[in-house]
Amino acid sequence: MIRPVIAIHGGCGVMAKLDLSEADWADARRDLAEALRVGWRVLHSGGSAVDAVEAAVVVMEDSPQFNAGHGAAFNTDGVHELDSSIMRGSDLGAGAVTLARRIRNPVRAARALLERNTAIMLGGPEADKFAEATGLDMVEQEYFTTERRAQALATLKAKAIAGTLKSATEAEKHGTVGAVALDAQGHLAAATSTGGYTNKPAGRIGDSPIIGAGTYARDGVCAVSGTGAGEFFIRHAVGHEIASRIAYLGETLQTAADQVIKTDLASYGVGAGIVAVDAHGNITAPFNTDGMFRGWITADGDLFVGTHTDVTQVSL
Amino acid sequence: MIRPVIAIHGGCGVMAKLDLSEADWADARRDLAEALRVGWRVLHSGGSAVDAVEAAVVVMEDSPQFNAGHGAAFNTDGVHELDSSIMRGSDLGAGAVTLARRIRNPVRAARALLERNTAIMLGGPEADKFAEATGLDMVEQEYFTTERRAQALATLKAKAIAGTLKSATEAEKHGTVGAVALDAQGHLAAATSTGGYTNKPAGRIGDSPIIGAGTYARDGVCAVSGTGAGEFFIRHAVGHEIASRIAYLGETLQTAADQVIKTDLASYGVGAGIVAVDAHGNITAPFNTDGMFRGWITADGDLFVGTHTDVTQVSL
Repeated sequence: MIRPVIAIHGGCGVMAKLDLSEADWADARRDLAEALRVGWRVLHSGGSAVDAVEAAVVVMEDSPQFNAGHGAAFNTDGVHELDSSIMRGSDLGAGAVTLARRIRNPVRAARALLERNTAIMLGGPEADKFAEATGLDMVEQEYFTTERRAQALATLKAKAIAGTLKSATEAEKHGTVGAVALDAQGHLAAATSTGGYTNKPAGRIGDSPIIGAGTYARDGVCAVSGTGAGEFFIRHAVGHEIASRIAYLGETLQTAADQVIKTDLASYGVGAGIVAVDAHGNITAPFNTDGMFRGWITADGDLFVGTHTDVTQVSL
Repeated sequence: MIRPVIAIHGGCGVMAKLDLSEADWADARRDLAEALRVGWRVLHSGGSAVDAVEAAVVVMEDSPQFNAGHGAAFNTDGVHELDSSIMRGSDLGAGAVTLARRIRNPVRAARALLERNTAIMLGGPEADKFAEATGLDMVEQEYFTTERRAQALATLKAKAIAGTLKSATEAEKHGTVGAVALDAQGHLAAATSTGGYTNKPAGRIGDSPIIGAGTYARDGVCAVSGTGAGEFFIRHAVGHEIASRIAYLGETLQTAADQVIKTDLASYGVGAGIVAVDAHGNITAPFNTDGMFRGWITADGDLFVGTHTDVTQVSL
């Protein structure tokens, strides 16, 4: 019997402590812990890794603290275009939606595509139609909007005009949520969901819905979910690259993950982070920025959450 | 000074000789040879690998013989939704468009995104708008339509109703075009373009626009372009998987490509093929079906084209 583990992230970046109020930081840690507990309960009631990562991501999509679902970023047209994917390590089954506008929980639509097993990936209005036909909760754009993201769009547009975009903080810019898990049967899964980055071009598809880039899981190797500068996750096929280094170079999970995040992607000067678990239940959560919303529950049932350098144990 | 090579494909599958007239087979071989010559001239006039693969793919997009650009397949709604991507091995730069409807040569839009270097991937109407703003040739849907694809849609819809879909021939079902090249500076590039498969769900995104799946290039390793059952190319991150086997297991190009196409993907009973070149100018073009439109020009300037088991040398 394998002891399950789960790890999640809620986005990485230059997270100045002043970007959020103390209450917001506490709320984010609370929602991370809750997402972990929800996934953990799935794993400990005999549920699969793919059920667990979906459930954990739904909690973060529903939280206004993270850039996915409720609380998603605006694109440059002031529209929320949502991307999500999920992958099951046992058979490499996968599902993904991109440029969705009306699906309350995009990860549920990705999961439904995985289960239907025809198209892996649907984009645009057809992703919404598929979700609706599947019976998922549909919402208006206003559901996704929060005051924080509206301010971020205004700030970034002003900075773009003023030519001071480089001073934008990560809280203004982007964020993503994701989860990875190992279940009691030894199966791995990963899921990711995002609104993309604030002021992104309309129609832009990042790495979060790309299997092999922002999301990847393969039994016997690892499960990975990424956050950061998506274009570079695509160029480096980050999820599949970490798996390949483990499977073919014999690297440990941590060595492979550190190589990609702290060397390969850091070389471009772009922010990046991941959470990953391997087939032995090892967990890693490297990031090359000064913070990442993250947390995990170990095989011993110890729950940790963190936003900056330190992580804090909280009760399960 | 490295001697350049180029290889292309125009789709793989169960290509019954009776699917096409003798004149059609000859036209397809002629257009493959012409695409190769166009790419070859780019490489031999000092052009880059990325210029060469773009130019070769444009010729195949413009040919009615192949399922890309003019001659693209219809989706289930009777609409042409086009996908393309391109990758430059020197810096892992990439561009991709998906669900485009009005771009005469989708690979040119992918290239423009690579050069602009902000979003790698644009989907839907925004891909069309980007291409138009870039000054690319825009066309109406009718431009893409050929009698052969219209018949294929009718046939597949009838077979779907009759429950005899498995009897559909590959010529009715799908196809993709792609090119890979090594230039005189030792740089690699890959490009892919497709209308997807006939009667595909509206909004379906296959592997052709997915960097790491249907298209991948990395200097020092290999360049890959795929054709076949796209969902399985996504699950196996085919392009990046072949590169990883070469870079990390030390396999040859041919061993790595054969493993993925003839073992990994063949295990699902799905059709798949690729063309690939490595940093030494080796060329491989494995497929697990009974045919693949393909061709290459060796470092010695020998031009070969083929549709089924044999390849024929034709004049450069």
